[in-house]
Amino acid sequence: MTDYEKIDTYLETNLNKSIAELSKLVAQPSVGAQNLGMKECAALVADMLKARGFKVEILQTPGAPVVFGERKGKSDKTLLIYNHYDVQPPEPLELWETPPFEPSLRNGKLYGRGVGDDKGHIAARLFAIDSLLDADGDLPCSIKFIIEGEEETSSVHLYDFIAGNKDRLRADACIWEFGSVDHRDVPMEYLGLRGICYVELSVETAATDVHSGLGGSIFPNAAWRLVWALNTLKGPDERILVPGFYDGIRPPSRRDRELMSALPDIADEYKSRFGVKKFIKGLTGGLDLRIEEVFTPTCTICGLTSGYQGPGSKTVLPARASAKVDFRLVPDQKPDDILKKLRAHLDTQGFSDVQITDLGGDAPARTDPDDPFIQLVAKTSEEVYEMPMQLVPLTGGSGPSHPFVHDLGLPVATAGLGHPDGRAHAPNENIRIDLYLKHARHMARIISEFAK
Amino acid sequence: MTDYEKIDTYLETNLNKSIAELSKLVAQPSVGAQNLGMKECAALVADMLKARGFKVEILQTPGAPVVFGERKGKSDKTLLIYNHYDVQPPEPLELWETPPFEPSLRNGKLYGRGVGDDKGHIAARLFAIDSLLDADGDLPCSIKFIIEGEEETSSVHLYDFIAGNKDRLRADACIWEFGSVDHRDVPMEYLGLRGICYVELSVETAATDVHSGLGGSIFPNAAWRLVWALNTLKGPDERILVPGFYDGIRPPSRRDRELMSALPDIADEYKSRFGVKKFIKGLTGGLDLRIEEVFTPTCTICGLTSGYQGPGSKTVLPARASAKVDFRLVPDQKPDDILKKLRAHLDTQGFSDVQITDLGGDAPARTDPDDPFIQLVAKTSEEVYEMPMQLVPLTGGSGPSHPFVHDLGLPVATAGLGHPDGRAHAPNENIRIDLYLKHARHMARIISEFAK
Repeated sequence: MTDYEKIDTYLETNLNKSIAELSKLVAQPSVGAQNLGMKECAALVADMLKARGFKVEILQTPGAPVVFGERKGKSDKTLLIYNHYDVQPPEPLELWETPPFEPSLRNGKLYGRGVGDDKGHIAARLFAIDSLLDADGDLPCSIKFIIEGEEETSSVHLYDFIAGNKDRLRADACIWEFGSVDHRDVPMEYLGLRGICYVELSVETAATDVHSGLGGSIFPNAAWRLVWALNTLKGPDERILVPGFYDGIRPPSRRDRELMSALPDIADEYKSRFGVKKFIKGLTGGLDLRIEEVFTPTCTICGLTSGYQGPGSKTVLPARASAKVDFRLVPDQKPDDILKKLRAHLDTQGFSDVQITDLGGDAPARTDPDDPFIQLVAKTSEEVYEMPMQLVPLTGGSGPSHPFVHDLGLPVATAGLGHPDGRAHAPNENIRIDLYLKHARHMARIISEFAK
Repeated sequence: MTDYEKIDTYLETNLNKSIAELSKLVAQPSVGAQNLGMKECAALVADMLKARGFKVEILQTPGAPVVFGERKGKSDKTLLIYNHYDVQPPEPLELWETPPFEPSLRNGKLYGRGVGDDKGHIAARLFAIDSLLDADGDLPCSIKFIIEGEEETSSVHLYDFIAGNKDRLRADACIWEFGSVDHRDVPMEYLGLRGICYVELSVETAATDVHSGLGGSIFPNAAWRLVWALNTLKGPDERILVPGFYDGIRPPSRRDRELMSALPDIADEYKSRFGVKKFIKGLTGGLDLRIEEVFTPTCTICGLTSGYQGPGSKTVLPARASAKVDFRLVPDQKPDDILKKLRAHLDTQGFSDVQITDLGGDAPARTDPDDPFIQLVAKTSEEVYEMPMQLVPLTGGSGPSHPFVHDLGLPVATAGLGHPDGRAHAPNENIRIDLYLKHARHMARIISEFAK
């Protein structure tokens, strides 16, 4: 019998030390999109693993390196833990209450870019390992960490990395990089991730911007070309117009709907948290909103840029315009297929002048809600959160879970310290310290029970 | 008889001194859109006028002040000269070969923001006045300068200023702020300006940006709202879709077409200068291109901004998006009317959430090609440019000529130092020194002949 009392005491006693270690990790910028501090952060994470007796390799990819760590344990089972050390860009900087790379502890929360997504999970999981080593001097099972540096830029090189390292990554189950409680503080078990196809669409119509008084009536305008091209992708009814886009989509099963209907109505919570007055597509809440939120694919404009964007007016006809667009995909859509269809669609619509830059993609993937590992992860939460986890068949976010599920053949379970006001990808990203401790306690239990 | 030989000798001898004065004026930033250096520049311009014996007033408006200067002359005629001391924003800075506010003389050109538009005209005209004073100790006629500071931001307060200062501005004719030669070095006389209605369209859909994985299927997206709203304004066929937009437009007259057909084909020149592969609306060149260029109104997107615009990807659903849009208007469209129709159109199309910020407007205005003052300005060019000016019934740019023509009742003639590669509103704005000297020589002749 694992002595969870001893483990919990260790975690409570050493919490401040672990938060200090996390703060050091957050203070090291690692903005993948801006290639800022990536090598330094990989080295720091490697050191953190080595300090726990892991055999660590920093493995190069054509992009940011992957930190791989392995430590043998008592049982013959192996748990693979997937995390990432890269973070989202911190912009817009002016909206942060404290600087993004100067972690700040206040009101029971730690603030900083990447504190929740995903550095807090790395630190909390190592903290759980500390407690197991303290209790027994050894790990109950073998643990492998794969900590990549391109999750926030669509894990462009992870697929090849996994394909080329199947032996190294061999395991019996996988813990995903994130997890969270919902707005009621109920821990959630997300059983699948949507896929993503992220592109930049760009147009160039001239060598230089032109005075709008001169060119407006006779010259092509890059901003207009972009607007018209975007408009062919989706209209105000939110239906995506790329031919074949919806092909092969699997509607939610009876079991999916059963699990989704056990979730609380989220409408008011979303409206107040994000300051949104109403939902699109006439949605008002309940099961319809829950199903629509995750079981439909999207086409989201993440950014637009062209011409003059400063204060006041500048009468210029822009030569260049671009948009960042992400498509969230549901089973069994595939990013490569969507990319091809998008190109064909733009050509058909007369927008061969619109260039597509592939900024990365993930295929969607799911794990069976009745898999024994899922059940174990859900059940071990009971002692920590005083309730079992609530199973969610699919979540709206994306990640590279497809190769873990389909290439490595692993059940993938989420467990984590996230909370709904954690502001991942936004200014004032934060974690709750109470949930950080709970996640470490939960992880210690998952590892111990999984080892048996 | 005016001694033009003496005047020309003075101008040639003192050219470097005048360029030095202009350089000092260009070195003083005066970016209206960014409220940068406006008062300082107005004071500098006032000093330049005072140095020529003008009685100067710096007159306040709700925006940038107007510099008004008057000096009596021998005849009872008064020439009003309109200029502006504000300049366009210098961005994008990285495309300047030398810094925009550090005037640089090379290869017979002076580079700097505002050197052509419009500070070079101020300096060259004062230089012409210097030569007249040198020749005769007095001005041949009275001269009034109205030098405003909001031309690049649509002269928003000039209309009220003119309405409130009709006596002060009383004159017999008006020289406009600009003028230029074309690509063959033929001086052009522009007889009219298009109007403009410049707006910012903005949308806010939430209090904060949202992770695109969470909100993409259910939340409104400000960037999409903006794209769809813009798309209702104009489609790829370039037809503007705001109901009533084309009401009251006067097609070019027989005399207009006669004057336009005397202009050379500009197609190849435009293509090579701006790096444009083809024109819109199937235009290829000739008279059709010339007529379309100026006699049709436009709807130009001058800028787009929303969400993440940095390198790589950021998966965010933007809460805010905005576009800068200018409508160039032809006789007899009116900016106030267009603004009302735009609001009504957006409301009808379901875009009441799109806010319109009025960033200023001008009504179009024209002067009769057969007005004696136009003929005088054209004819006086002959000795300087070795050819009379070529008359152009309307030009594509805009400006506040409507109150000069219609409220003050003046014939308005253009004359200036511009050239086709002058890059007004763009990086590396420049003037040719030879044309600077020619403009000063021409202005001395205009003033002398007008006085008679």
